Amino acid sequence: MNKNNFCVIMAGGIGTRFWPMSRISRPKQFIDVLGIGETLIQQTFRRFEKICPRENIFIVTNLMYRNLVHEQIPGLGEYQVLCEPARRNTAPCIAFANQIISNINPDANIIVAPSDQVIINEDRFVEILNSALNVSEQNDWLLTLGIKPTYPNTGYGYIQFNENQVLETNRELRKVITFTEKPCYEMAVKFLKDGDFLWNSGIFIWSLKSITKAFSEHLPEILEVFRPLSSEITEAKIEETYTICPSISIDYGIMEKAQNVYVMVSDFGWSDVGTWASLYEVREKDKNLNTIVGKNVMTYDTKDCIITMPKHKLAVLQGLEDFIVIEEDDILLICKKDQEQQIRKFVSDVEVEKGEKFL
Amino acid sequence: MNKNNFCVIMAGGIGTRFWPMSRISRPKQFIDVLGIGETLIQQTFRRFEKICPRENIFIVTNLMYRNLVHEQIPGLGEYQVLCEPARRNTAPCIAFANQIISNINPDANIIVAPSDQVIINEDRFVEILNSALNVSEQNDWLLTLGIKPTYPNTGYGYIQFNENQVLETNRELRKVITFTEKPCYEMAVKFLKDGDFLWNSGIFIWSLKSITKAFSEHLPEILEVFRPLSSEITEAKIEETYTICPSISIDYGIMEKAQNVYVMVSDFGWSDVGTWASLYEVREKDKNLNTIVGKNVMTYDTKDCIITMPKHKLAVLQGLEDFIVIEEDDILLICKKDQEQQIRKFVSDVEVEKGEKFL
Repeated sequence: MNKNNFCVIMAGGIGTRFWPMSRISRPKQFIDVLGIGETLIQQTFRRFEKICPRENIFIVTNLMYRNLVHEQIPGLGEYQVLCEPARRNTAPCIAFANQIISNINPDANIIVAPSDQVIINEDRFVEILNSALNVSEQNDWLLTLGIKPTYPNTGYGYIQFNENQVLETNRELRKVITFTEKPCYEMAVKFLKDGDFLWNSGIFIWSLKSITKAFSEHLPEILEVFRPLSSEITEAKIEETYTICPSISIDYGIMEKAQNVYVMVSDFGWSDVGTWASLYEVREKDKNLNTIVGKNVMTYDTKDCIITMPKHKLAVLQGLEDFIVIEEDDILLICKKDQEQQIRKFVSDVEVEKGEKFL
Repeated sequence: MNKNNFCVIMAGGIGTRFWPMSRISRPKQFIDVLGIGETLIQQTFRRFEKICPRENIFIVTNLMYRNLVHEQIPGLGEYQVLCEPARRNTAPCIAFANQIISNINPDANIIVAPSDQVIINEDRFVEILNSALNVSEQNDWLLTLGIKPTYPNTGYGYIQFNENQVLETNRELRKVITFTEKPCYEMAVKFLKDGDFLWNSGIFIWSLKSITKAFSEHLPEILEVFRPLSSEITEAKIEETYTICPSISIDYGIMEKAQNVYVMVSDFGWSDVGTWASLYEVREKDKNLNTIVGKNVMTYDTKDCIITMPKHKLAVLQGLEDFIVIEEDDILLICKKDQEQQIRKFVSDVEVEKGEKFL
């Protein structure tokens, strides 16, 4: 395994979209959303162990999740868990990790990835990333993984690539033309028809040198803010850094502006499981198309439901169709699948009416 | 308060119809099914305290519920809780209590009543029972309370009374012609139309002398079986008695055969809450016609539901219509209201698949 291979897992999200399965105190990445005995961050870490030496894997998370990370991935060195005292989007998160890695190995070749995605074909995933690392090692390019879209999802960002310019050395690698934010449905349909659009996975591959160069070109102020961490890394210093650091995404700050961006056309079965609907897609289903997590769930005249119950809990469910039924700790949520966009409102109502303890 | 007034509360039922709210270890009578802070047996006891001296109220229950009775009705003397070691239907239950009461007061005037009914108008209830006690004190009659039916319920027994024979002394008292078991729907409709049928409440009023006479006439073998308890009451003796005692209901064994049966036409708002549907009728409803017990239940697009949640539990329910949603301890039941007859099957499946711990 190449000693220069590094990985930065971004695990700072605090989303409550999967409430009550996810809670502020334990967001999605720290949950076994698939019900397979492994949380999303554990799966992510395990996947990258096949690509990078374990000691080269860094996790950037919010300060409040430090213990959760150590609990879920035992044996990590303290230096591997980078704790952000504030949320500043992805560019600072990456700049932080870059600075730490540059103190260790200036020749680092880095994968940056979210901690909360589902990958179906792990072998193919590893294969594509190794191929990408080879490319980034040899070229001053910023690579991203683009997923072949299978339907007009309006919740993802899209990447348009240059159809005509095929690299002889790597036919899956294409030059990026544009990044597009979440499109409307008609636009998404057109993207699929056009054939030169991919889903933006949010997984990046670049050498430390290339990404540092890109920062100095497009986001010099962020590079500057993190530079003091080259000599001394203390919590006070990090706190100070984040206080003055602006909030900006790597997509907006660098990827959409840089001219040396390439995309690897990927087909390893990917989901960012950002909605209950997408979670439903990737979870195993029974003959009535229910996806059930829980040892004691009995269903009658029930179909097309997403059900998650604690292990000890007995649930007898009759007459439900197209529902989300989730129990976690002291909270039960029942909601029609096609009304999941309302959950944000429910959580906000809960906060107002019942206080923070249920968030 | 008349020192001869006695009350026998029958609390031996182990029904699981309200599972999982009711459990074998805590059947319906020991549950606050209305969500008003009082269990059914507590309500029943409190009602009869207005009619009988507290020390004259006896509770006949199954041996396994002795502690539950003492917990829910603190301060009862040990002698007031008669524990049956086996289930033998109502006639032995009444014979047992009669024997115990006859050791105390041969002039007792007794009300016998189930422990798990709901009475809406308690003042009227007390008024009618006092009137009935007056009648039973002065006549060798067996009285029962008949409820003016409000709709063709097929789950109740009916009592046909003699329309033409009105007693000048008590216009609400009528001679009984027949007892009818649960009728089919068409029959129930006819009963209501005829106007001379009442719902059988299962509440009886008689003097100890009259009911003893009726036993000696119609069920002498049961009278005989309990006679040894006149001299010595020990658990072993009771155990022995119940081993040889046949199982028979007071309706079948005596009421349907005796010629001196009268019914008090009663209108105090009564329900035996024998089904979820009838529980729905008597519980308070919100503006969406949901009846909700639980401090932290939030509903959206939800109507006509019966919801019971533990106090500490937060439930956010969206998109449910005509459902039963019950959580009790470690069990959640969701079932369409019009499918409640299936619950018996669910419970049986649970027993087979998950064992007795959830019953």
